[in-house]
Amino acid sequence: MLRQEKDVKVFGLNSNPELTEEVVKLLGIESGKSSVKRFADGEINMNVEESIRGCDTYLVQSIGGAGLGNDYLMELLIMIDALKRASAKTINVVLPYYGYARQDRKTGPRQPITAKLIANMLERSGATRVLTVDLHANQIEGFFNIPVDQVSGIPVLAEYFEKKQLEDIVIVAPDNSSALRARKLGSLLDAPIALIDRRSYDTGEPSTINVIGDVVGKTAIIIDDMIDTAKNVTFTSQILEEHGAKEVYATFTHPVLSGTATQEIAQSNIKEIVVTNTLPLPKSGDIDKITVLSIAPLLAEAIRIVQEKLSISKIRK
Amino acid sequence: MLRQEKDVKVFGLNSNPELTEEVVKLLGIESGKSSVKRFADGEINMNVEESIRGCDTYLVQSIGGAGLGNDYLMELLIMIDALKRASAKTINVVLPYYGYARQDRKTGPRQPITAKLIANMLERSGATRVLTVDLHANQIEGFFNIPVDQVSGIPVLAEYFEKKQLEDIVIVAPDNSSALRARKLGSLLDAPIALIDRRSYDTGEPSTINVIGDVVGKTAIIIDDMIDTAKNVTFTSQILEEHGAKEVYATFTHPVLSGTATQEIAQSNIKEIVVTNTLPLPKSGDIDKITVLSIAPLLAEAIRIVQEKLSISKIRK
Amino acid sequence: MLRQEKDVKVFGLNSNPELTEEVVKLLGIESGKSSVKRFADGEINMNVEESIRGCDTYLVQSIGGAGLGNDYLMELLIMIDALKRASAKTINVVLPYYGYARQDRKTGPRQPITAKLIANMLERSGATRVLTVDLHANQIEGFFNIPVDQVSGIPVLAEYFEKKQLEDIVIVAPDNSSALRARKLGSLLDAPIALIDRRSYDTGEPSTINVIGDVVGKTAIIIDDMIDTAKNVTFTSQILEEHGAKEVYATFTHPVLSGTATQEIAQSNIKEIVVTNTLPLPKSGDIDKITVLSIAPLLAEAIRIVQEKLSISKIRK
Amino acid sequence: MLRQEKDVKVFGLNSNPELTEEVVKLLGIESGKSSVKRFADGEINMNVEESIRGCDTYLVQSIGGAGLGNDYLMELLIMIDALKRASAKTINVVLPYYGYARQDRKTGPRQPITAKLIANMLERSGATRVLTVDLHANQIEGFFNIPVDQVSGIPVLAEYFEKKQLEDIVIVAPDNSSALRARKLGSLLDAPIALIDRRSYDTGEPSTINVIGDVVGKTAIIIDDMIDTAKNVTFTSQILEEHGAKEVYATFTHPVLSGTATQEIAQSNIKEIVVTNTLPLPKSGDIDKITVLSIAPLLAEAIRIVQEKLSISKIRK
Amino acid sequence: MLRQEKDVKVFGLNSNPELTEEVVKLLGIESGKSSVKRFADGEINMNVEESIRGCDTYLVQSIGGAGLGNDYLMELLIMIDALKRASAKTINVVLPYYGYARQDRKTGPRQPITAKLIANMLERSGATRVLTVDLHANQIEGFFNIPVDQVSGIPVLAEYFEKKQLEDIVIVAPDNSSALRARKLGSLLDAPIALIDRRSYDTGEPSTINVIGDVVGKTAIIIDDMIDTAKNVTFTSQILEEHGAKEVYATFTHPVLSGTATQEIAQSNIKEIVVTNTLPLPKSGDIDKITVLSIAPLLAEAIRIVQEKLSISKIRK
Amino acid sequence: MLRQEKDVKVFGLNSNPELTEEVVKLLGIESGKSSVKRFADGEINMNVEESIRGCDTYLVQSIGGAGLGNDYLMELLIMIDALKRASAKTINVVLPYYGYARQDRKTGPRQPITAKLIANMLERSGATRVLTVDLHANQIEGFFNIPVDQVSGIPVLAEYFEKKQLEDIVIVAPDNSSALRARKLGSLLDAPIALIDRRSYDTGEPSTINVIGDVVGKTAIIIDDMIDTAKNVTFTSQILEEHGAKEVYATFTHPVLSGTATQEIAQSNIKEIVVTNTLPLPKSGDIDKITVLSIAPLLAEAIRIVQEKLSISKIRK
Repeated sequence: MLRQEKDVKVFGLNSNPELTEEVVKLLGIESGKSSVKRFADGEINMNVEESIRGCDTYLVQSIGGAGLGNDYLMELLIMIDALKRASAKTINVVLPYYGYARQDRKTGPRQPITAKLIANMLERSGATRVLTVDLHANQIEGFFNIPVDQVSGIPVLAEYFEKKQLEDIVIVAPDNSSALRARKLGSLLDAPIALIDRRSYDTGEPSTINVIGDVVGKTAIIIDDMIDTAKNVTFTSQILEEHGAKEVYATFTHPVLSGTATQEIAQSNIKEIVVTNTLPLPKSGDIDKITVLSIAPLLAEAIRIVQEKLSISKIRK
Repeated sequence: MLRQEKDVKVFGLNSNPELTEEVVKLLGIESGKSSVKRFADGEINMNVEESIRGCDTYLVQSIGGAGLGNDYLMELLIMIDALKRASAKTINVVLPYYGYARQDRKTGPRQPITAKLIANMLERSGATRVLTVDLHANQIEGFFNIPVDQVSGIPVLAEYFEKKQLEDIVIVAPDNSSALRARKLGSLLDAPIALIDRRSYDTGEPSTINVIGDVVGKTAIIIDDMIDTAKNVTFTSQILEEHGAKEVYATFTHPVLSGTATQEIAQSNIKEIVVTNTLPLPKSGDIDKITVLSIAPLLAEAIRIVQEKLSISKIRK
Repeated sequence: MLRQEKDVKVFGLNSNPELTEEVVKLLGIESGKSSVKRFADGEINMNVEESIRGCDTYLVQSIGGAGLGNDYLMELLIMIDALKRASAKTINVVLPYYGYARQDRKTGPRQPITAKLIANMLERSGATRVLTVDLHANQIEGFFNIPVDQVSGIPVLAEYFEKKQLEDIVIVAPDNSSALRARKLGSLLDAPIALIDRRSYDTGEPSTINVIGDVVGKTAIIIDDMIDTAKNVTFTSQILEEHGAKEVYATFTHPVLSGTATQEIAQSNIKEIVVTNTLPLPKSGDIDKITVLSIAPLLAEAIRIVQEKLSISKIRK
Repeated sequence: MLRQEKDVKVFGLNSNPELTEEVVKLLGIESGKSSVKRFADGEINMNVEESIRGCDTYLVQSIGGAGLGNDYLMELLIMIDALKRASAKTINVVLPYYGYARQDRKTGPRQPITAKLIANMLERSGATRVLTVDLHANQIEGFFNIPVDQVSGIPVLAEYFEKKQLEDIVIVAPDNSSALRARKLGSLLDAPIALIDRRSYDTGEPSTINVIGDVVGKTAIIIDDMIDTAKNVTFTSQILEEHGAKEVYATFTHPVLSGTATQEIAQSNIKEIVVTNTLPLPKSGDIDKITVLSIAPLLAEAIRIVQEKLSISKIRK
Repeated sequence: MLRQEKDVKVFGLNSNPELTEEVVKLLGIESGKSSVKRFADGEINMNVEESIRGCDTYLVQSIGGAGLGNDYLMELLIMIDALKRASAKTINVVLPYYGYARQDRKTGPRQPITAKLIANMLERSGATRVLTVDLHANQIEGFFNIPVDQVSGIPVLAEYFEKKQLEDIVIVAPDNSSALRARKLGSLLDAPIALIDRRSYDTGEPSTINVIGDVVGKTAIIIDDMIDTAKNVTFTSQILEEHGAKEVYATFTHPVLSGTATQEIAQSNIKEIVVTNTLPLPKSGDIDKITVLSIAPLLAEAIRIVQEKLSISKIRK
Repeated sequence: MLRQEKDVKVFGLNSNPELTEEVVKLLGIESGKSSVKRFADGEINMNVEESIRGCDTYLVQSIGGAGLGNDYLMELLIMIDALKRASAKTINVVLPYYGYARQDRKTGPRQPITAKLIANMLERSGATRVLTVDLHANQIEGFFNIPVDQVSGIPVLAEYFEKKQLEDIVIVAPDNSSALRARKLGSLLDAPIALIDRRSYDTGEPSTINVIGDVVGKTAIIIDDMIDTAKNVTFTSQILEEHGAKEVYATFTHPVLSGTATQEIAQSNIKEIVVTNTLPLPKSGDIDKITVLSIAPLLAEAIRIVQEKLSISKIRK
């Protein structure tokens, strides 16, 4: 609960209305009055329905979900522009999910760095701070010249698994760049890690997959920052079983779940997939195998800390 | 035709592939090799498939069409970022249609100025020049600190009407802010103008419509910069008929034609609607009443002038 | 009256000393102590005579008047620089008249956009907000990245005419770009509008003038944002009489009144010209035909709203 | 003479038309076609009458002269804006006289640093380089982030005195901050220096003047960067005579000569005042005692060096 | 060899004089004439001894080596400032080693992101492009808004090992964040990878080390981007031996080798350490166990590509 | 003493720990908890050990001392970056000594302006204000766009000399650019000034030294902003003696004292050198002839004034 709710306004745009509602309730305030609609031609129609002159404002919006990341980004930028011109004191952008984060470096010749482009757009339009969750790479913090407060959903995920009291577990990094994240969960659950080593060939040969580390007879928990098409995780799960894993769980902060992801999951040998609500599940995502944990308490606490000028270090990533 | 095609690359993104193809042919060059696709989650996947280091590059893209203006804007910004990082010498953004142009001032309290936001985004991402057609307001040129070359499609429209040899015409401005545009077409066709005067009430009374000027027995040509839902123009046409106009044409540079616009047109008393191809027609738009003129020769000429460092004043708006 | 006058300083520079004095009195405070003089060579000599460290400062200055717009602009920029370096908390520029506003787009090849240049200069020197009255075009708000609060003098003008109880009036837009402003006054006075349609020829023929709309036997009120040389309005007035108008009034927010304007007015058939004091009248302007209404209550109210962090929407343009 | 005159345009604005003409002739090119006029209300009306797309442009304008420094600065900024928007390749600002240079530091509490403000304005409007003559303080070069090429008129002045073959001379710095300049001229003329030491009192006592160094029986040449009201130099001259100087000359790069300067000079004991034409003389300035040397060859050479990408070090200050 | 050496200048500052000399020879040009010395108080004294007006300039300097990274960074920034003010056409910063790269994200509360700070400093001082080798994290490319061309030294290292014809090798990632780099070398040498999994405890227990993957009886090659104090690699080597590795090599692009690194190496069980010369070896580093390969051909080729406007994709990281 | 110590943090970095301690005590607060160390490779390791979110922060650091100016500058920039990212409200940089200040203009062709580079670096990294002491040239204030508050140590030095009650003194400016500073001390001590006139020759002849003004039989006090290698002052002192001075003192705000400065002083005929502690003395500097006065009361008072939003004009330079 915020000690002082005057001159603080939290606005939810269209990506995560339920998450915003939850955050606002936890803060003990009402959500800012605004509406974001579309004109017939697809352009965004923004209305801020109460004065915010001199207020600290918070905008909760994910750049992704429902295939509408570009639209949600534009909503966010337009809202920032409106608040800036209406003399908000601060404009704090709360990004549960930072879209385009995988494009955080040039992956080939003449590639863009879209994650940096987004940082530039947010700063240029008038954002004064960013609050976000489990960035694809922590270096994205350095794309900004304004303060970035990053919090981690991994403790939320870890706590859930701890309660399940699974035995003899191994945390599995699904590719060569995610061992650090596996180690983080591994430490929280006091477990060893394994790594899926993928090698692709310029010659066109099919890529080779190795399992590095010991998974035989173990309960494997695959971890990554996001699950998108689910092709990778279901394939990894199969590989793990072939290499002797007893059963396979998977866990992710960000449930992108695009395309046929939920069908893939339903048909896979994965026992359960645990995610947070940084993105709303697609409608098809309401299946038994998928468990959603709320990130709202973490975001509410982060907003409270920022607003009351305390130290965020305890919940920082 | 460009005198020198080395080190010049014209790229079309996804909004107007046919227009781009036409422009490129008129310039006597091949279009730049690139592809812009979507990942399953909706994020944009950009590939520039040839070196552009040290080249003058032109990107043809409208910020609108098919309800996808936000996506097309992101395509454009990402492509600019890619070209900048790949060491293009100049990045010339060719915007046949400048979306969000109607949001060029605050229309109410706490409103954004999205047309300015877009200008900022284009500049910040690395654009070095803008080339555009019939801005909603010429003042938008002043939103930029980089050069803006604006050309006008009205002479293209006027030439078409001249060939039709309509008699006793009056050019009609459909609202209080467009008399200047009517005067421009009126001068090219040597015709008087009339004005639809709209007044709305705070009290909730229905708004009043007056026809200012003489339309009795005349062939009216309504002109505006864009046709969106078509509700306004079909209503205006009906009013003109009620006030004695013999028949009604309408003409616009930009065929946004969103929602049920083409049905509205088909069922209206408007004899013909003449537009350019700054935006592709929606599929439903392929009806007899709608005539499309190509803006490609104008854009090709403008690109040639910029590239060969000539004066654009003859075709400037 | 300001509820809290500590840490607020309102400074008047040289363009409008009387208006500033009036505003300051209405706010119930004393004006900031400063002097702006000229050295013998014409350079500006600025003295801020009291500490403003940490204060909200307001500078009242029009960029125009007495042919000294460039000097007044420099005074303003130099004062902003002085306040910035002296650690003012905010620097609010109050521009009763925004000079060079007519140069808000390129009006020909190789033309500057001076209204944008001024916006850039104000921002670059350190202004944190602009408060202004009846911009020549609302789009000028979009030239800024800092908040712009625009208020309108038209209700002040309308109230005056309402009290006169003129009968059978028509509001006249003196050129093709000002019908919207005529409609605004028309709505406040419950009156129809007419439009002077001007057409000029490339061939060198004299331009043609048409009166669009019904003026016969009516009391015409010409409206525009500013009256400069008065040539246009006196000519329009004559045209209106020739077309049957009974009598002619004219009203403007900004009385530029340059050159021989007041003589022109004295000799014209215009019955009365009603303006505000966003610019002081030239000495020759003190003639019976010219009525000046004060904009000070509007500006004082706007400053109060900004300072007390209320909503300006009721008095926004 | 420029080896290549294509794509180079030198424009003179209103401060120094004759100097510009001279420079242009020395370069062997024609001056750029433009006109800078005033509207009746004092606003500047700019016309660039030939295409400059892709050209290297040079603008010759002093920020001072005839009490019109503010107007000349605005002319310059507006012209830069026009050239930038018209796609000039480079915009080189040639400032024979850099106005407001004396305000190059805070001289008291809450003072502006106007010389820096001007640097910011020039950069922000689009200047890409500055070429200037004898800055009041060399540190002003550091106010810019763009290249500044400074040349010195002192060798031009020295050459004139050398031809006069004066004997037993002493170079006099007229205040405590100009000994370095005196030393520079002293070295060129192989002469000792003296210094006028001025001390002012907080108590209100009249300030004390000492002559430091030996002037008895000598021909004194007072040097400073500019002569403004001439009060200081005529007073200094009198002091020198009182201290035994045989006769007194004075020399300055910049002839500001404001107010009654020329009368003061005419009535003084100064034998001759030698200046350059970085500013045109006021009409009253055409008196025998004042000798004007042309800076045009120096500026023409500097432009040639910049344009042909040579080293300017030989003529640098 | 450069096809055209006019208007190209390559300057070496103090960090890598030998590498620069080698690069310059490969390009077939002479190195730019400049000297960078120190005043007695430690301030840097810079002299550029030939005109570079209008030239493409390249500055070769590592931000590190000999404990002098901060000084070398200042040398670089000051040189950029000098070149900018001397009108260089482009300023290409060639950073064989990008110091402070490990500080590329906040590693704890209130930590700086120094790698981003350096990016900002380079851009702000006037750099127009960066060319660098094996960044600690590829995301650092996104810290810049100017083009960054990154090349990789790993193929140089791989080629050396290939010639050695070692058998039954395994590439070892020495910590959880470097599996991707191990995979890259593994692919070039057609070898599997293993991972050292490090876990530290908040409770103060000693951290646990696991070897993930199969090393028994194999020749292990440890790879990382840089070797600093060598403590980590010698410890890893010991662990690998304890886990059954037959012999241990190690390879790094950047030989920081600070403190007692070379003694540690000399006393360790590592058979050979292979590095490049992005940093000069410390004097103590000239021991048999350390092999240095030259990165000069790669840098020369990259400069040639940039200068001749070709595509760098073949040698990009 | 600060009236309010909440939300104010004063941090000392490594250049002046004792001065900082003294300032903090005078303010009646505790110094901010932080540590700045070095990694083995020389990179700076920064730890801010308490939350500063929303605080006004002051960083006390000189850019010089012990030959470590570049390192101290980097410490400062990194600390600014850390505070900015940790959401400090303001970041006030207190620079007792502004290093590289002598490089405040181009001193030859292709020279940098390093004092401006430093200003840019401080602003770009996030500093919001600068507080400094006796700049080499006051114009350096104009290198900044943020507020600069400069205070002067000269009254501190003057007070010391006043207490000594020396008789028949003359203040000596040791070169042609420092007469103004001599005049300032002269006014405080009610004394005349003299000037050392130095002339160097292009021909290679040894430079000539003249004493301008009367020193015979007098007690000379040489004054300059800083003493570096001491070669200049000891030579000047000798010259003064040769010209008849009775005894020679020297005084400086900034004791750089690099190289063999203290030996030079010990062996010279200078009776006493009086400095402040804007830089700590080198170890060798603890000799009888050197007297150090503390600048801490002045800095503490300046911080108090800034923090309590009072006027600094009484202690401004």
